[in-house]
Amino acid sequence: MEFGNPQENLWPRKNRRVLNDTPIFKLVSHDVSPFGKDFTKPFYVLESKSWVNVVAITDKDEILLIRQYRHGLHEYCIEIPGGIVDEEGEDAPLVSAKRELIEETGYTAPEWKLLGKVSGNPAVFNNYSYTYLALGASKTDNVDFDEAEDIEIILVPKDRIIELIRNGTIHHSMMVSALSLYLIHEKF
Amino acid sequence: MEFGNPQENLWPRKNRRVLNDTPIFKLVSHDVSPFGKDFTKPFYVLESKSWVNVVAITDKDEILLIRQYRHGLHEYCIEIPGGIVDEEGEDAPLVSAKRELIEETGYTAPEWKLLGKVSGNPAVFNNYSYTYLALGASKTDNVDFDEAEDIEIILVPKDRIIELIRNGTIHHSMMVSALSLYLIHEKF
Repeated sequence: MEFGNPQENLWPRKNRRVLNDTPIFKLVSHDVSPFGKDFTKPFYVLESKSWVNVVAITDKDEILLIRQYRHGLHEYCIEIPGGIVDEEGEDAPLVSAKRELIEETGYTAPEWKLLGKVSGNPAVFNNYSYTYLALGASKTDNVDFDEAEDIEIILVPKDRIIELIRNGTIHHSMMVSALSLYLIHEKF
Repeated sequence: MEFGNPQENLWPRKNRRVLNDTPIFKLVSHDVSPFGKDFTKPFYVLESKSWVNVVAITDKDEILLIRQYRHGLHEYCIEIPGGIVDEEGEDAPLVSAKRELIEETGYTAPEWKLLGKVSGNPAVFNNYSYTYLALGASKTDNVDFDEAEDIEIILVPKDRIIELIRNGTIHHSMMVSALSLYLIHEKF
């Protein structure tokens, strides 16, 4: 971490209250005192497990995209595979990445590398989203959708990623961040 | 939009219920029927106004970063200026971008350009985050923090953006997405 970003003088918080518990996150409020101020006000946090997504590249230099319905926007979105890290332990994000890739696409890959992580949205979420690069991806398994998943696979030459972000085809912030980690890894 | 991503066969939803109303979002649930399935289950959406952020570049080719406490992660984070689009109307994101830049940093700029937008997180949020490029930024005004804001300004050569994403100094997904739109605009 740079610029002297010490994690001192954090804003004190107390009276944690779980307001709602959904399958994706808990909505929690605290009474927070901005540092050096003498008042408190309620702040809200969405407590969530980590997320993970996968930049999967085939031997033909295609990237594996998926198309699925997203309830937040009430639209179909074009993304990369990924999901919630349900596993525990140090390797959990990688194990989860491999599982999500198989479940959502039936693809596996021999070579995996962590590209980095971004915070889900540190204003309101308490979690991180990990991005893995999977090289040599190919279709080896059957898909295994959750009861409320219905995913279509789209293979695209990887050289088109920049164009697809620029023209808004891929607009999910977590996926744009993930692809940005990939582009930084590849191009610079 | 590419790949035949028609917005047909959206999953029907009914019985909208506001479960909580916070200053940043409403937590809402619907009964949703996955397309072609004969069951419903509750899905959750965080209804929020649009967000906006600003890639502000000075005449010395520095980018304007800010450091502030973020309740979600309970940490100080290094970001670019931005906030919630409180204004109404077609120009609202731009008006809001200019207002946030002044309030948070005291900087203004003569030249503005929309770099693009990303969806906040279409799995759970219903909103978009707009990114503006502000060129020729300079300190002309006093800051005007909200009662629970305390923001430190950091000027960094813009050529260091990639390094700061790669080493995790800037990790907020909305900011990484915004800077990715900027890098795509500048480099490609």
